Amino acid sequence: MKNMLNMVIKPVWAHCDLMCGVYDPAQARIEAQSVLAIMQKYQESDDEVFRQRCIIIKEKRAQLAKEHLWVLWTDYFKPEHIEKWPELHDLFWRATKQAGETKKSVDPAEGEKLLELIGEIEEIFNQTK
Amino acid sequence: MKNMLNMVIKPVWAHCDLMCGVYDPAQARIEAQSVLAIMQKYQESDDEVFRQRCIIIKEKRAQLAKEHLWVLWTDYFKPEHIEKWPELHDLFWRATKQAGETKKSVDPAEGEKLLELIGEIEEIFNQTK
Amino acid sequence: MKNMLNMVIKPVWAHCDLMCGVYDPAQARIEAQSVLAIMQKYQESDDEVFRQRCIIIKEKRAQLAKEHLWVLWTDYFKPEHIEKWPELHDLFWRATKQAGETKKSVDPAEGEKLLELIGEIEEIFNQTK
Amino acid sequence: MKNMLNMVIKPVWAHCDLMCGVYDPAQARIEAQSVLAIMQKYQESDDEVFRQRCIIIKEKRAQLAKEHLWVLWTDYFKPEHIEKWPELHDLFWRATKQAGETKKSVDPAEGEKLLELIGEIEEIFNQTK
Amino acid sequence: MKNMLNMVIKPVWAHCDLMCGVYDPAQARIEAQSVLAIMQKYQESDDEVFRQRCIIIKEKRAQLAKEHLWVLWTDYFKPEHIEKWPELHDLFWRATKQAGETKKSVDPAEGEKLLELIGEIEEIFNQTK
Amino acid sequence: MKNMLNMVIKPVWAHCDLMCGVYDPAQARIEAQSVLAIMQKYQESDDEVFRQRCIIIKEKRAQLAKEHLWVLWTDYFKPEHIEKWPELHDLFWRATKQAGETKKSVDPAEGEKLLELIGEIEEIFNQTK
Repeated sequence: MKNMLNMVIKPVWAHCDLMCGVYDPAQARIEAQSVLAIMQKYQESDDEVFRQRCIIIKEKRAQLAKEHLWVLWTDYFKPEHIEKWPELHDLFWRATKQAGETKKSVDPAEGEKLLELIGEIEEIFNQTK
Repeated sequence: MKNMLNMVIKPVWAHCDLMCGVYDPAQARIEAQSVLAIMQKYQESDDEVFRQRCIIIKEKRAQLAKEHLWVLWTDYFKPEHIEKWPELHDLFWRATKQAGETKKSVDPAEGEKLLELIGEIEEIFNQTK
Repeated sequence: MKNMLNMVIKPVWAHCDLMCGVYDPAQARIEAQSVLAIMQKYQESDDEVFRQRCIIIKEKRAQLAKEHLWVLWTDYFKPEHIEKWPELHDLFWRATKQAGETKKSVDPAEGEKLLELIGEIEEIFNQTK
Repeated sequence: MKNMLNMVIKPVWAHCDLMCGVYDPAQARIEAQSVLAIMQKYQESDDEVFRQRCIIIKEKRAQLAKEHLWVLWTDYFKPEHIEKWPELHDLFWRATKQAGETKKSVDPAEGEKLLELIGEIEEIFNQTK
Repeated sequence: MKNMLNMVIKPVWAHCDLMCGVYDPAQARIEAQSVLAIMQKYQESDDEVFRQRCIIIKEKRAQLAKEHLWVLWTDYFKPEHIEKWPELHDLFWRATKQAGETKKSVDPAEGEKLLELIGEIEEIFNQTK
Repeated sequence: MKNMLNMVIKPVWAHCDLMCGVYDPAQARIEAQSVLAIMQKYQESDDEVFRQRCIIIKEKRAQLAKEHLWVLWTDYFKPEHIEKWPELHDLFWRATKQAGETKKSVDPAEGEKLLELIGEIEEIFNQTK
């Protein structure tokens, strides 16, 4: 518990819609991991109902990854961050477009590309703290 | 009906998550108009329950405006558009941030700023067709 | 911007749940156009995953068209409108039923029927202003 | 368990969006009872936070009552029902409008009116089986 | 109407998130009946689009059954109930897991198992009043 | 990126509704941290609109914490876990009830209690891997 409460006492403050949000790229990453896992399971299965459910659930998980990325971009990052990392806008644009790609495809390589882009965002995010 | 069906026969095609989306900044604008209208009604009322409902409903409408803008940015616009209008990324960033501002405020001026930014996006959008 | 701000200054006021709603049949029409577009793309494709996604996304778009129509019917139209256009109740009933039909079918003709019914509603709506 | 399984074996079939829906006005009634209960609790309390939560939760419950009514109207009832009970369209219109009224008010009398209208719908519904 | 209003005057009060909730296992049961109905329709059909829609809609209905059960477990039942029916925790755990099973399967037997578990919960629920 | 991809290559597999879910108590914890942060901001502010928005947003965040906990309980944990940690059912019951308490209160102590219960769940979760 200690570690966790420490983290709470110094949370990742940011100017969110309430001016007090807790941001964490982990939310997008968890959904993207789920997308990748679904793609892998899809490839390994030949059960028609199972594969249809993969498409349905992947659609939702990819959408959630997209939404978590959008919130991070608009609500967490501030003008001084954009000045320091001018590539941020384009990085988020490509990452959210890639989340869209993972809806269209069942190729795990597309899921891995999404995770790599989220990883690049995560690296910048960690430097802002 | 004629005009409308014409519009349907030549719809606003774009590379969306299904590669066949119908995009229209009107969706964001209608929600932003609703946000502005709620702000104006809030100012004119002194009924406590009514004003609390204004805050609740404005929160949702502003969120919908934000989401329609995000979808337009990620799904409608393509690399060639960003090349031609390099200000697009920053314009959408400011517009979605402004949608966040309209949640925090009951000042109609904030709603008008959001509508102006959506208007700027609309002008570029219209040139892409 | 001018035109748009004019539109904002004289918005489409109506007695909504907040007594200040901005109503526009465009919301239902945009979703119905999307439904039609998906049906057309479905017919042109023989990719199994793509076609499954068509069914999933069409289901949602048709539901949104249905919901926008319901809101318009219940919240925008007032007793004096029903007196003047007594066919309104049945028109909305058939239009929302048709939105349901577009979930069941991948035939673009069903999407066009929905758009025609929305067009009839739009004509009455325009006369109320 | 017996009674319930009997009910399952002969469920309330109807032409829904899947042509196999299970309809029950109980869904709308449960939400409307919740709306009424919240109004009563609001009147009995003078705690500011509690009363604000009443407004927030009542908004959602009233919306759910509205949505269940809309689904019943569009998806359960068929042309032969409208012929036999031509008042159905107007009854549903007034009931969904009343669901909207219960958002605006904290007067339990408004919640009771909604329950009465749902009761009238229920009586017709029961005669269709 | 009489009976219904009586029911309203003495509603099923319980400690919910607002301390005034109206709880009824009927909400979960209606969704579970819908799940079972969809499974039966799936078995009777060989239309590919219809069957895909069955999977999509069953996924949602099963999720709703799951959510209604979770709410009942956490919000309606109190420590004294758990003392009297110590099997309650495990019963809800198995019922919500079974709701998950009905997503994975198109075998009506799985839907019936869910309804039986909801029936067991219903029996205990009825004894708490 | 290395660390993250390693984590992806050996993800937290579990029997979810798709038999391939990625589970992580971090999802509940992030929402609960947000609830606590909102409570603290509420106490520091005397702006009426800001405080009303705190209540609205806290309601949603607490609900999300509750839902992430429910999913973890039903979908991640298996009979062998319950055998080894028989307190799990009750722990999740108290944690989801506490998520409900954080809706009712603006006292940061209630938010801290929720985080502590999530911490206890996290400790057991970590031992299952």
